[in-house]
Amino acid sequence: MQLETLAQIARLADTLPVADEGTRAAAARRQDSLTKPPGSLGRLEEIALFMAAWQGNDRPRIAKAQALVFAGNHGICAQGVNPFPQEVTAQMVANFEAGGAAINQLCRVNGADLSVIALDLDRPTADFTAGPAMTEAETLDALNRGAAAVDPQANILTLGEMGIGNSTISAALCAALFGGEVADWVGRGTGSDDDGVRRKIDAIARGLARHPGLAPIETLVALGGREQAAICGAVLAARAARIPVILDGFICTAAVAPLFAADRRLLDHCLVGHVSVEPGHRKLLSAMGRTAILDFDMRLGEGSGAVLALGIARSALACHNGMATFADAGISGA
Amino acid sequence: MQLETLAQIARLADTLPVADEGTRAAAARRQDSLTKPPGSLGRLEEIALFMAAWQGNDRPRIAKAQALVFAGNHGICAQGVNPFPQEVTAQMVANFEAGGAAINQLCRVNGADLSVIALDLDRPTADFTAGPAMTEAETLDALNRGAAAVDPQANILTLGEMGIGNSTISAALCAALFGGEVADWVGRGTGSDDDGVRRKIDAIARGLARHPGLAPIETLVALGGREQAAICGAVLAARAARIPVILDGFICTAAVAPLFAADRRLLDHCLVGHVSVEPGHRKLLSAMGRTAILDFDMRLGEGSGAVLALGIARSALACHNGMATFADAGISGA
Repeated sequence: MQLETLAQIARLADTLPVADEGTRAAAARRQDSLTKPPGSLGRLEEIALFMAAWQGNDRPRIAKAQALVFAGNHGICAQGVNPFPQEVTAQMVANFEAGGAAINQLCRVNGADLSVIALDLDRPTADFTAGPAMTEAETLDALNRGAAAVDPQANILTLGEMGIGNSTISAALCAALFGGEVADWVGRGTGSDDDGVRRKIDAIARGLARHPGLAPIETLVALGGREQAAICGAVLAARAARIPVILDGFICTAAVAPLFAADRRLLDHCLVGHVSVEPGHRKLLSAMGRTAILDFDMRLGEGSGAVLALGIARSALACHNGMATFADAGISGA
Repeated sequence: MQLETLAQIARLADTLPVADEGTRAAAARRQDSLTKPPGSLGRLEEIALFMAAWQGNDRPRIAKAQALVFAGNHGICAQGVNPFPQEVTAQMVANFEAGGAAINQLCRVNGADLSVIALDLDRPTADFTAGPAMTEAETLDALNRGAAAVDPQANILTLGEMGIGNSTISAALCAALFGGEVADWVGRGTGSDDDGVRRKIDAIARGLARHPGLAPIETLVALGGREQAAICGAVLAARAARIPVILDGFICTAAVAPLFAADRRLLDHCLVGHVSVEPGHRKLLSAMGRTAILDFDMRLGEGSGAVLALGIARSALACHNGMATFADAGISGA
């Protein structure tokens, strides 16, 4: 997928693939034939049906799981919104590449192929309290780099991010798109103290005042960052290839909130891996009508909650594909 | 571990191993040195520390995970508490042995060695509305068979059960041990309709009236079943070997409620894998002060939720043992 203009994004929901309801029904019939009380695997059954409908295969599979982590830097850090220096973004990318981060261990245990894509870390976006964070061309470039990173052969895609300052970006996107008090979207991120939280709220309020009345995709340009745009691009490219997606926590979900606001159908192929302890995430999931798979009081990012949920999806499909039917097993009915 | 009398159980908490707090503290220091904001892995960090404290190893491991499923039959089925015939218990055991059940698939994905132990399926316990479900000798025998099934070399143990009628047993145990309205402990089990639920409530009420004033371990004799006693025995044997345990849903947690009521310290080495959609489970976890790891609207039993949570524990330990420290990775501080 190659996007030519930002304006085309909102219209993509009319042309991108949709869930295959016939396949979902076939998968549901299989679930009801398996040796268990109907519905007794709960969310695992829902995940199996979701995977079936999006893969267009009533015996959905995960032969190849791709984990993408996008990293970016943010001019808003000039406003003192994060206690860590921006060099940490590149240092953590090096840690990902050396195999030392949480996401590396989680990908190993849960069977995901990890790619980390650093997006111009030496050129942070602009400070959104002074002007738009990105140009339209920069946004489009990051969207297309995200889309190009998706392996069309993957059976499932997990998304994650790294970027010092990006919990501020996320809260700004949410406040712009969904309204409400700025403070309700702001949390401690990597470890802000009370003063740091106040600086985040103040910077976001000034950013919102600087950029009033934005359309959904315009929020991505004015307030977002490269990793947010790349995540949007990856979500759209996955949709084009009928690849189900697992989003991560607050920052990853906020990154795709512009797509949701532009046309909520654009996220129909996405699950949310976990609900973060970052307070804005629960509010965001509620606004989007979503329930995360896991609730572990995590707040790391990197795609960590998405890859944990991938392990759950593997279990869901193992039951769906591997269990005997009542007829196979000769088990008595009620 | 070989139990000689039921009376000794309540006193075991004074002699069985306890969590090693020094090791827990060493594991916590390691967690705080890893390349992530402190605490950002949430419940995964708690699980790693729990495993460290019980294994007595600040780098806890899961080289061998054992999954035990105990099966039993119940005389209370004469009261029409379950729409399925009791033969289904043996048919499902055959399904476990043939590899066709959910638990087989979940053990494969999450790396557990499964053993299924059928406990005298051709001799159901007595109908507790007429007399005690078991004799003391039968209870002790099942406890010891459960204890003997534990592999002392396992690094973690998951527990599960199969037994037509055993959601009624579970509700009876909970009502006897924790009080409250019988109806609040009763759900649909494998698929009771409204009449079936009424029959369950009525049978339990008559059982409680038949066996008033029971001490905790006496509830296991009068109202329990062989798989409940075996689960208690496995929990005690695991404790003796410092093996952390993951309990499954309502029936598995209710099975060990007599141990909790006898001395709550007896369950200190146990996690609860998931909270069941069976309504009594949430109430039971609240009474026991526990939070389950997963909440997936499951109600299958077999140890399915426990083995899913084993996968989460594997991820928790992979992060704990495999991540780089800040010093290793040369990452800047706040």
